[in-house]
Amino acid sequence: MTRPLCVAERAKVPPFQVMDILSRVAELRAEGRSIISLCAGEPGGGAPTGVSAAAARIHASGIPLTYTPALGIAELRAAIAGHYRRWYGLDVPARNVAVTTGSSGAFMLAFLSAFNAGDRVALARPGYPAYKNILRALGIEVVELDCGPATRFQPTPAQLRDAARTHGPLAGLVLASPANPTGTMVSREELLGLSTWCAENSVRLISDEIYHGITYPAPGAADPRGVCAWELDRSGVVISSFSKYWGMTGWRLGWALVPDDLIDVVDALAGNVALCPPAPAQMAAVEAFSDASYAQADIFLAEFSRTRDYLLDNVGRLGWGDVAPADGAFYFYANLGDAMDGFANSTEYCSALLERAGVAVVPGHDFDTAAGLGAVRLSFAAGFDAVREGVERIVAFQQSRVGN
Amino acid sequence: MTRPLCVAERAKVPPFQVMDILSRVAELRAEGRSIISLCAGEPGGGAPTGVSAAAARIHASGIPLTYTPALGIAELRAAIAGHYRRWYGLDVPARNVAVTTGSSGAFMLAFLSAFNAGDRVALARPGYPAYKNILRALGIEVVELDCGPATRFQPTPAQLRDAARTHGPLAGLVLASPANPTGTMVSREELLGLSTWCAENSVRLISDEIYHGITYPAPGAADPRGVCAWELDRSGVVISSFSKYWGMTGWRLGWALVPDDLIDVVDALAGNVALCPPAPAQMAAVEAFSDASYAQADIFLAEFSRTRDYLLDNVGRLGWGDVAPADGAFYFYANLGDAMDGFANSTEYCSALLERAGVAVVPGHDFDTAAGLGAVRLSFAAGFDAVREGVERIVAFQQSRVGN
Repeated sequence: MTRPLCVAERAKVPPFQVMDILSRVAELRAEGRSIISLCAGEPGGGAPTGVSAAAARIHASGIPLTYTPALGIAELRAAIAGHYRRWYGLDVPARNVAVTTGSSGAFMLAFLSAFNAGDRVALARPGYPAYKNILRALGIEVVELDCGPATRFQPTPAQLRDAARTHGPLAGLVLASPANPTGTMVSREELLGLSTWCAENSVRLISDEIYHGITYPAPGAADPRGVCAWELDRSGVVISSFSKYWGMTGWRLGWALVPDDLIDVVDALAGNVALCPPAPAQMAAVEAFSDASYAQADIFLAEFSRTRDYLLDNVGRLGWGDVAPADGAFYFYANLGDAMDGFANSTEYCSALLERAGVAVVPGHDFDTAAGLGAVRLSFAAGFDAVREGVERIVAFQQSRVGN
Repeated sequence: MTRPLCVAERAKVPPFQVMDILSRVAELRAEGRSIISLCAGEPGGGAPTGVSAAAARIHASGIPLTYTPALGIAELRAAIAGHYRRWYGLDVPARNVAVTTGSSGAFMLAFLSAFNAGDRVALARPGYPAYKNILRALGIEVVELDCGPATRFQPTPAQLRDAARTHGPLAGLVLASPANPTGTMVSREELLGLSTWCAENSVRLISDEIYHGITYPAPGAADPRGVCAWELDRSGVVISSFSKYWGMTGWRLGWALVPDDLIDVVDALAGNVALCPPAPAQMAAVEAFSDASYAQADIFLAEFSRTRDYLLDNVGRLGWGDVAPADGAFYFYANLGDAMDGFANSTEYCSALLERAGVAVVPGHDFDTAAGLGAVRLSFAAGFDAVREGVERIVAFQQSRVGN
């Protein structure tokens, strides 16, 4: 009974450094310390009132909440299709809409259905670490593209061409706009370039659009909510979510626009791997597409925008290096520059900032195991007051170091 | 732009024949036909009142429902641990409890973390088809064990020994007790035999216990709720759910008991593939472990038991062959025997039964692509009245055929 059993290598996800930071935040708060946490990748305002009220009514009615169709209830699929008409003027058939268990569920289905084990899929570094961790767990080879300030941290057709030459043909590209951790977006022209390259090279584009709508366009700018990949080409998979714009992270509800050649495969697969997305969340989420819910989400957006403006005005005081242009989402991804003096890497910097100044930000290592060693991600989702206090503490921390 | 993109072979799940039956049920009902559907693998009674009320309160309060820890909120993990003390007298540390997005989420995490691609995992045929479909999508080789009435449709150590000799060493065994589609259970002795064989052969046992509690023990029988695999050996993964005993299928909430060597891997993996289980469901599900909720679930159980007794009394009238001993769950899995005369397979039989008699049952092919061609699964979850009417219609259908 003592021989060790198998623990699969593919499942051994590298630990996130933010987890150590978050544990320490909890410990320090338990000791009574005042801690400003600018770590969270989620809005704190919660769902639109109409959605919460609908969920309360559904549960109060006591109706049995049984399995739904694997790709979601018809009413919600139709409502999501309507959302594409509203924001993008795009006519999406409801049959191509797959409701999923968060965008996480959509990524699993997209990766499983579009890529065989051994296939090569490219993505930007820095980037959301779960992409590569899920891909690798599924036996898919990840090709990281080093993306820096010169391309606003987004991949280019030239990089894809080089990557295919170096590693062999690619099967997929995961693109995120707005991106996590940088908040940068691709323009319509850039997306067209990438999308065309993908089509010409039989590469499936997986377009992560979960931060669409949390965007800070100049007044009168084109594509104020972001450009949807399906505006240009419908052969890829578009992934989105109720988590960010509608503030519904914990509800675990997202969706994918799935091209014709994949939809039946995804339908059958979804029934096996997930059965269906959460039924009460689906029923309530229909309310997310009411005028009142959009209006309420836009009020939260205005608050993000005010906080972002404050940060842009004060970023020079932080004593950090370059900050990625946060076109959308709620992150500032900063190269620490001279602020790194005396620290081996940004993980050490983050630890010192937390211990001495009581401010928690995420070390860049989680998003980029190379250049991220000199970077941090500051989330301004925590709200204006928390961010302002956090900035003052960081400024004081930096000044105290200069004084030493 | 016209070259076809990859659709992954591994994702091509064989279509379920029940889907055709269910579509036809919907069509016939739309035409005004009275149809008795005995297909569903879910109770229709819904969640315990206290759970629904808690969910209504949570949503009405409007508190933001943000991400929870990947393995669930501490309160629910502790409550699940308490459930093992209550039903099995078993002391399970809350840190080994992983709350998951339905049992589906638990299977994905268990299979990914315990098996490498290329590993061999054994399971019983007939069985729940999603096991093998998920395993194959993850590149794991499925070894089906032909299980018939002689072993109550459950695998034996002798079969496992033979399978390892024929196919090569096994890495895992998926065991379901009560099983779907047969409802049969393994005794404590049988489970000990399997569990010991697994331990001696470095085989990870994945024990599907989602139907525990929906059981029909003789008065005073030992282990009335089922035997938990962790009562005998804690090296395997136990998977369970709020879906069946508590009637919460659509909520998508389940759990796993994860052994020490896997728990950290599963924690990190869960954060990547799912982020967390649905937050409102987690918060409300704590109420499932109140005395009132157990009492209410046991009232539904009494109704299942009454329906099962009725079926046992009337099964001889159906004109079918042998029926598996439904120790638990809410299924009768029947070999059609002579009733198959004139039909190429049970799928054709099911189609005729639906068209002519207005009764829907599931063809055995979905659970067993070999012997299942002569079998059907009748679910009695639909309730006493539906089942009684269904039986009378099946009897009349069989008599009309004899008369022809």
